[in-house]
Amino acid sequence: MIPHFQPPARTLLGPGPSDVAPSVSRALAAPTLGHLDPRLFACMDELRGALRDVFGTQNPATFLISGTGTAGMEAVLANLIEPGEVVLVPVHGYFGARVAEIAGRCGAEVVRVDGEWGRASDVAKARAALGAKKPALVAVVHAETSTGVRQELAPWRDLAREHGALFVADTVTSLGCIPVDADANGLDGAWSCTQKGLSCASGMSPVTFSPRAVERVRSRQRKVQSFYLDLGLLLDYWDGAHAYHHTISSNLLYGVHEALRLVHEEGLAKRFERTALVSKAACAGFEALGLKLLVPQGERLPELLAVSIPEGIDDARIRTRLLRDFDIEIGGGLGVFKGKLWRVGLMGHGATRRNVLTLLAALRACLETEGYKASGDGVAAAEAVFGAR
Amino acid sequence: MIPHFQPPARTLLGPGPSDVAPSVSRALAAPTLGHLDPRLFACMDELRGALRDVFGTQNPATFLISGTGTAGMEAVLANLIEPGEVVLVPVHGYFGARVAEIAGRCGAEVVRVDGEWGRASDVAKARAALGAKKPALVAVVHAETSTGVRQELAPWRDLAREHGALFVADTVTSLGCIPVDADANGLDGAWSCTQKGLSCASGMSPVTFSPRAVERVRSRQRKVQSFYLDLGLLLDYWDGAHAYHHTISSNLLYGVHEALRLVHEEGLAKRFERTALVSKAACAGFEALGLKLLVPQGERLPELLAVSIPEGIDDARIRTRLLRDFDIEIGGGLGVFKGKLWRVGLMGHGATRRNVLTLLAALRACLETEGYKASGDGVAAAEAVFGAR
Repeated sequence: MIPHFQPPARTLLGPGPSDVAPSVSRALAAPTLGHLDPRLFACMDELRGALRDVFGTQNPATFLISGTGTAGMEAVLANLIEPGEVVLVPVHGYFGARVAEIAGRCGAEVVRVDGEWGRASDVAKARAALGAKKPALVAVVHAETSTGVRQELAPWRDLAREHGALFVADTVTSLGCIPVDADANGLDGAWSCTQKGLSCASGMSPVTFSPRAVERVRSRQRKVQSFYLDLGLLLDYWDGAHAYHHTISSNLLYGVHEALRLVHEEGLAKRFERTALVSKAACAGFEALGLKLLVPQGERLPELLAVSIPEGIDDARIRTRLLRDFDIEIGGGLGVFKGKLWRVGLMGHGATRRNVLTLLAALRACLETEGYKASGDGVAAAEAVFGAR
Repeated sequence: MIPHFQPPARTLLGPGPSDVAPSVSRALAAPTLGHLDPRLFACMDELRGALRDVFGTQNPATFLISGTGTAGMEAVLANLIEPGEVVLVPVHGYFGARVAEIAGRCGAEVVRVDGEWGRASDVAKARAALGAKKPALVAVVHAETSTGVRQELAPWRDLAREHGALFVADTVTSLGCIPVDADANGLDGAWSCTQKGLSCASGMSPVTFSPRAVERVRSRQRKVQSFYLDLGLLLDYWDGAHAYHHTISSNLLYGVHEALRLVHEEGLAKRFERTALVSKAACAGFEALGLKLLVPQGERLPELLAVSIPEGIDDARIRTRLLRDFDIEIGGGLGVFKGKLWRVGLMGHGATRRNVLTLLAALRACLETEGYKASGDGVAAAEAVFGAR
């Protein structure tokens, strides 16, 4: 016999999932509908409109992949890449490397341009690395979840346009936290997730494809290698024909619908402003404690702060204690930053004054137990930012 | 502004999703945990044990894919097929055709052996079709969701063994409804779904791989074409290392955990017995109304009944009215059976006396409005079966 499972109520301040609003949790539990129920189609149509607003796009082909953000990444890449094509991927973190890896598995000739982890990539360096090669696709990470770096999209769009290449971006950690402006930035494709800036449970991946990208997929020489992620089949289901393809999870859709409703209720601009303010306060707090931020301010994502772990402090001991005694989750470092960084997410519903103050107080207590001497009062420094508003 | 979405409470008697138990709905709404939270790993470990029992296997590599049943199908096929290998697929319905399609996209040389839709496939015919070809994989559909046909597994296992081939099966519509007995049937791989026999929301796909299959994947010449579905990476996450791969949906896991808890509380044997009895009553009811069942009794799945639509009756009118006036969903036909079949699911939590009697009464009312004359009393015939127990 297995017992009933009751999860603890954590405060989720890692790189995602973020705190889920109570009405989103309730929405997940609403009565299940079949994947061909006309009432579900109405819900999906509303959801798509709201999703276009958050992406900043008019693309009709804006919808959800039935999988997590990595499934969305694979969906965009597998549909847009044909074997042998050149794909340019600047890499300055774990997720850039993942883009390059997946592009390779799709049969691309990947031109991977490695930059420093913790800084944005340099377009000039990428242009030089291309040499005489003509990319069919340029794929960048808008918000690098492993380091908290924000990559400007416009220069990469321009590079893509020079070559007549398609331009796509990973917006997993940007959607709902900072503007994506897909149309203004000339994106032909983007993927994201539901559990960060949108503050829903994970399990679906918002994607958008420009009309040009859809046209490219429709004129492919070879079938898309994945049936599950085949754009044509997915649009046959999401669009008017509503032809069966897979059994979409109505319960997850309810959650995403409600999460997007909350985004719209608050207003996108206000949400971005709140995220920025809460992040500024958190940065002031970390700095007051004597902790260093990895990313220079101009390239720093407000919603994901990479904090260097002080010399002599054990990563696991601090994070275990935060989780055990305070029910607070923050993230550790990935790849080269394993054991060297904490990743603090201030995303969507979780980007609140209460969460920042609680984290600063709890983190100080944990650090001081380990012998660390804070250089100042993190909570007061954060409060000063909130008060100055 | 988008309004709050409140779905109606349907009675789900189509080919899935099936009715979700209240405690499973509640579990979906429990507090979200991060994908690396030790408490979530404990939940996942319990869940895996329970899943092995339902599959009838000791395979350590038993877990969930973060996608629907079709993602599970693709996961098993993409991991076990290397380009150029011969894959034998008997096809007697829509999902057999899907297996063949996906195997082709994985680069297999597919030997597709078409049989009659509505009957099981014939091993002798498949053996003849193979000729001198040696399959590396034999992939069959245990429970064909498009027609309600049950395929015996043992003869196909024997054929696979003759060639030293791996043997895998689609158990999307069988898991939790009839025995799968993966180990006894010599399965090297199987995929299923959460929204039919387990009566959870959809969005995850239970899969199992035999040690032999895991070994085959580990000794592949080429990387698996899908990163998202790569078995090695998935096991690195699900097993002791718990290395990050994707952000699994804790909320969906809670639902599956609770659904499996209910299966164990009832007992597998009792669940199969209940499904069989409810199905027998439904068959008696349909026949009393003068409706014909597509599949002969010996090959008929108890949990999914394909009912021929009587001459002159319009499929859409009946199903629309059942949905609108009675909040009952049943399924239509797929492929060659579009407009010609109804598919009635009696799965998991939805396989109840109440549901059978309500459907029979409502269906009769809808049919008679359209001018159909029932040949007898469906409800009384079903009641006689329940009473005789």
